[in-house]
Formats: sequence, C-alpha cells, structure tokens
Amino acid sequence: MDVFEYHRGGKIRIGLSKPIRTREDLSLAYTPGVAEVSKRIGSEPELSFRYTFRGNSVAVVTDGSAVLGLGNIGPEAALPVMEGKCALFKKFADIDAVPLCVRGDVAETVKAVAPTFGGINLEDISAPLCFEVERKLENVGIPVMHDDQHGTAVVVLAGLLNALKLTGRSVEDASVVVNGAGAAGTAVTKLLAYYGFRDITVCDTRGAIYSGREGNTGIKEELASLTGRTEPGTLEEVLEGKNVFIGLSAPNVLNESDVRTMEKDPIIFALANPDPEIDPEAALRAGAAVVATGRSDYPNQINNALAFPGIFRGALDSRCAKITDGIKVAAAEAISSVAEGVIPDIFDPRVHASVAEAVARTAYEEGVAAVRVSENYFREVLKRISRE
Amino acid sequence: MDVFEYHRGGKIRIGLSKPIRTREDLSLAYTPGVAEVSKRIGSEPELSFRYTFRGNSVAVVTDGSAVLGLGNIGPEAALPVMEGKCALFKKFADIDAVPLCVRGDVAETVKAVAPTFGGINLEDISAPLCFEVERKLENVGIPVMHDDQHGTAVVVLAGLLNALKLTGRSVEDASVVVNGAGAAGTAVTKLLAYYGFRDITVCDTRGAIYSGREGNTGIKEELASLTGRTEPGTLEEVLEGKNVFIGLSAPNVLNESDVRTMEKDPIIFALANPDPEIDPEAALRAGAAVVATGRSDYPNQINNALAFPGIFRGALDSRCAKITDGIKVAAAEAISSVAEGVIPDIFDPRVHASVAEAVARTAYEEGVAAVRVSENYFREVLKRISRE
Repeated sequence: MDVFEYHRGGKIRIGLSKPIRTREDLSLAYTPGVAEVSKRIGSEPELSFRYTFRGNSVAVVTDGSAVLGLGNIGPEAALPVMEGKCALFKKFADIDAVPLCVRGDVAETVKAVAPTFGGINLEDISAPLCFEVERKLENVGIPVMHDDQHGTAVVVLAGLLNALKLTGRSVEDASVVVNGAGAAGTAVTKLLAYYGFRDITVCDTRGAIYSGREGNTGIKEELASLTGRTEPGTLEEVLEGKNVFIGLSAPNVLNESDVRTMEKDPIIFALANPDPEIDPEAALRAGAAVVATGRSDYPNQINNALAFPGIFRGALDSRCAKITDGIKVAAAEAISSVAEGVIPDIFDPRVHASVAEAVARTAYEEGVAAVRVSENYFREVLKRISRE
Repeated sequence: MDVFEYHRGGKIRIGLSKPIRTREDLSLAYTPGVAEVSKRIGSEPELSFRYTFRGNSVAVVTDGSAVLGLGNIGPEAALPVMEGKCALFKKFADIDAVPLCVRGDVAETVKAVAPTFGGINLEDISAPLCFEVERKLENVGIPVMHDDQHGTAVVVLAGLLNALKLTGRSVEDASVVVNGAGAAGTAVTKLLAYYGFRDITVCDTRGAIYSGREGNTGIKEELASLTGRTEPGTLEEVLEGKNVFIGLSAPNVLNESDVRTMEKDPIIFALANPDPEIDPEAALRAGAAVVATGRSDYPNQINNALAFPGIFRGALDSRCAKITDGIKVAAAEAISSVAEGVIPDIFDPRVHASVAEAVARTAYEEGVAAVRVSENYFREVLKRISRE
C-alpha cells in the first residue's frame, strides 16, 4: 500500500467510551451532571486519574528538532511520527496517547499541560536540549520518559543480555564500545554502567571520550568520568580486543577489518537508522557472533516499541511518579526473559505484559508508585492487550 | 446511573484509524515508511492537514479558571468538563477533539501546540483574561473560538431571531437588555450589534453600563460606546418598556414585577446556570411570551452544543483561518432555520450539518478559508454524523 494513501486522514481518532444517545446521557457526560465530578476532583486532584481519561493517557511530545534521520524538520512534519507512536501505544498497550508537536519551549509546554495526562513520552528532541528538558521535568508528578534515550537503552540492554548469554559471556566478561554520544548513546552508556558493566568506552566523531578532553561538554565529561577513560584513541584503536560494539551513530563508520580486530565472536549492534554502521552481512562475514540493527528487514531489530508501551502501561497502572534506573533495568530484564533468541517478537503480547508487570512491581518496591498492582496483573494486562 | 460510575475511566479514548496487524502495517504507520510522509510535510507544512489527524482535530483548552458555575477550580478539575465537550464534538460532528487543561499561560501553550491541531476551542476561561487570550491567538493560522463567548452568542442570536418571529417582531422592533457583562454577555452584545440590533442596553451588577461611568474597564467602555448608552440606570429602570431580556448573570436577579414593566409579550432568556435569573414558571406567569434557559430540563435550552460542533466541522473542512462575525451570524441563521419553535433539537443531525455548511460557505466567501466545499457538502456531513 502507498504510504501517502495509508496516511490520508491520519492514523488515530477519538472514540466515545460511553454512549451518548439520550438527553440523560448528555446530562451525565456534560452539564449539569459533570459539575459534581469536577467539584470532587477540585478538592482531590488525584481523582482526575480515576474519573477522566487521564489515568490511561500519555502525551507524545516533540519539538520536531531531531525527527528520525531527518533532523530538525519542525513540529508539523513530526506529527506523522508522533501519531504513529500513539498508534503503537494503543496497539501494544491499550494506552490512549495523544501527539503534541510543539513550536517553542517543550519543557514549559509539558509543565503547562501535565494536569491533563498520566504520563509524558518525549520524542525526537535533539541533544543536548533533550537532557535539559528531562531535568526540568523531573518533578512534574507524572512519569516523563525521553524514549530516544531510555526506550533505546532498555531494549539495547535487553538484547545485550541475551547476546552475552548466547555467546557464553557474563556481564563481567563484557568489554563494550559505544559509538555515538548523542541522546541514545549517552543513555545506553549510563544504563549499562548502572547495570554493572565495568569495561565501557564511549566514542564520538573525535574518537574516545576521555576526562579533560579539549572541548568536552558537561555531558561528555560525565561520560568520561562514568567510564573512567583518561586517554585518547580512535574508534579503530579502542575496538581492538573488545567483544561488544554498540553503534548509535552514523552509516558505515564500521568496516569488516575493525570487526576482525575485536575479540573472537564479537557482538555487533549497528543501530544507526535507516542505514546501520556496518552492513549486517559484512559484520557476519567478519566473524560477528550476533548482529542486531534498528531495521525491521533484518533479524534482531532493536525496536523501542518492545519497551515504551509496557513501560507506560505499568507506570500508569501503578501511578508511578518517575521512571527510575531500577525500573528501566526491570523492563530490560523482562524483555530479555521473553525472548527465545536475542530479541522477542514485537507482536507477542507477553512482551508488553511482562514489561508492564516488571515496571509496576519495581516502581512500587522503589517507593515511586502509589498503587500496588494485583497478583493477577500480568494476566489482566495480557488479556487487555490481546484484545487490541 | 451514578455520575461517578459513568465517569470512571473517562469518556473518550483513542482508536486506530488503520489496522496494525503485520510487520508491513508497522512499517507504514511508523518507521521506516512514515519518514517519507514527514519529509514531504517538512517541505509543505499545509500537508499536515491531509496526512495526519490534524485535519479533523480540535483542542479543547482551558486553564480551569471559570468552570461551569464552580469558579476557579483548577485544570485537573476542569478535565471532566473538557472531556465531555470532546465527547460532544465526536457525537455531533465526528470531530476528534482532545482536552488540554493548562496550568499557567493559556495563550503561550496554545501557540506552542497549534501545529498539532486543526482548531482550538477555548473553554471556561475567566473574563477579562479570555479576551486577552483570544486577541493573542488571532493570527495563529487555525480557527480559535472561545465557546463561552461566541458559541453562546451564536445560539442566543439563533433563538432570539425565532423568538422575535414567534412574537411578530422584527430585528428593528427589538429593544434588548443584556444583563451580565462577563465573557458571554460581552460576546452576545457584540454579535447582536453586528447583526443590526439597534436598541441594546447592557447591565452589570452596578446597573447600566454607560460611557464615562466611573471605574469602567476598557471592555465596559467599549460596550457603552457600542450601545450608545450615556446615562445611568438600575436594571429595573432600564427594563421598563423593553421587549427582550437576556440574562447571562446570576440566579434570581429578575422578578415577576420587573417582567410586568416590560413591553407586552416580552422575550425572556434567563441563561444563568444552573439556576436561571428567574424561574421560567414565574416569567410565564408575569406575561413572558417566550422563555428560554440554559437548562436541559426546561423547554428552549440555549445549548452551545447546537453551535460549536457544526462551527468547527465547517471550519475544519474549509481550512478556515478564523471565525469571523460573519461566520457566527451564518451559523446562528442556520440553527434558527432548522428550528420549528425557538430552538431545534440537539439530536437532529440537520442542525449540525446546516451549521457546518453555513460556516464553510461563508468562510470561503469571506476569503478566510482555503478550501471550497463541494455542492453535496450538506448531505456528506449529514451522512457522516448520522453514523456517530
């Protein structure tokens, strides 16, 4: 089907949860009946999660500054992507997500509209602005997650855990080179470090990021200190003898001979989109034991849609206030555990139900959630999303 | 049914316009397919109206500062009302409306999110802030309407035209007292003056508003100059001999003896909600020929839902940039023409289709719309909304 034909009129629409057929229905849905509900929420704002769509809603927010591989194409042009994301939220987690494409200050806009939503998914916002936006929204009272950072980090961690297992390695054995220090590279590095990976080197276009490197921004200095790197080095140099490459950078920056200098049976995640850091066939020819990409037309797709629907399902159901590192790890382990190979099937509803359950339980254990989900939560979610 | 039970989980939800069942669907709805659509909109932002939900979407925006009769109860508490309004948009005009309850600056927030929506319905924002918000949003490129002002004015004008006809009067014969100079009273007065009503007096709690009255705000001075009033007078005094009372004020400010001093067979619109300016029975006892209220449990309900769904249906379909006075008049005449008595039945889809058609045609004639709707537009809309 032609993609423009598919998009005509958009991909989402509003539906009524309750029928409006009679004058009585009208007086319940709107005036005068609704006044009682508003009054009660006025004295107890938390009830907005129970008596409105808020409890099941997420805003998918962007300023259009870093849309897919297209760069800063503006809020209107970002709308089909945000709408697509909303469609995936519905499909995989029965969440009512609304796109918000913002011209101007994302953080201020999100703060302003936060009383309407149960969660905020930030999307396609350029680095380093995205870090600042997240920081400003830390205490907004509902979970905020920049998916390009944390959704990616969760799925990379999930895939990496399985890839290590498949190649007979432990986390302690792993020696990781992360290439790319934008939104995704930064978040992946931080989550791996939090998880306990000890040998990590981060490269950008100028090679290894190390403490005191001339021109380091604050975030790059932070990455250097997190990885303990103190010396320069080209990507080629740092790759030698390592066993994991994670590319979140640009097409064709890795070649076969680079892969051949790595430890035997290396793990190659070439996640640049749409064109990966190295052609998967070439990586396999050069001896890679596991290859993953961001593309749906190769095996082992590192797809954020494995994570974000379940993360927000669990966060909404537990009335979680923020997505902590512990929650991200729990989500990654849940994805990892459902997979038979490196990465599970996105259409397997157990993935999303497992993530939701892991998130809800961890959030409650960590004290950032107000609601403890029931014993049957996994089955409830599974049933709910199998209907979609 | 219990109103809290009715509201549990909210009244609207997101649905998918296109199925997502296969990997191919996924690659159309989201990456990589969507990139082509985004790219094209990037070079021609107007196409966002065609290839996203934008072309059929309205944001229903409030700051919760003047919710129903409840005052400033805040954005969370306003959400059930906004959501109800969104449900009515769907029910009566098949429009995908999204609530946005804002903490902070409404105008700035609307400007920021305008690239996402096809229109903006402002709601329950206190006066005089609402006037300033509207002024700031005049040139945002999509139609913005503060419904408490203009939706009310349209339906009042519609009802008044029929009430005059039923009592054998012309517009020239009408002598009108508008009681209340808030958002609604101001807009009603302006629209009546625009329509050609010549004898209008506006009162607030201090009586008649006249030029040079001590303490007049800018808007009240404007009302005085619009009505040509130069002298003081109590509500009782100004009512004497007049034939139309339009109350947009407070409960029980009008009594039977006031009505008896009016011209024979007066028209009484007592629109304060939930308790009208005078009990309809009392008004009839005092000789009123026509009585209308804002309540659904009396005859002749002046209900904004007769206007806003069709107004935005027509505005969206004609890609209208603003709701002009001419458009409001066309909408009022359309409502008026469908009624058999004073006010038509809200569940009669011809009302909304007539309004949509009048709006779309007038907008195009006035040069504020980009699209000329088809010859069959009325029937198309009728068919579309009869399905809802």
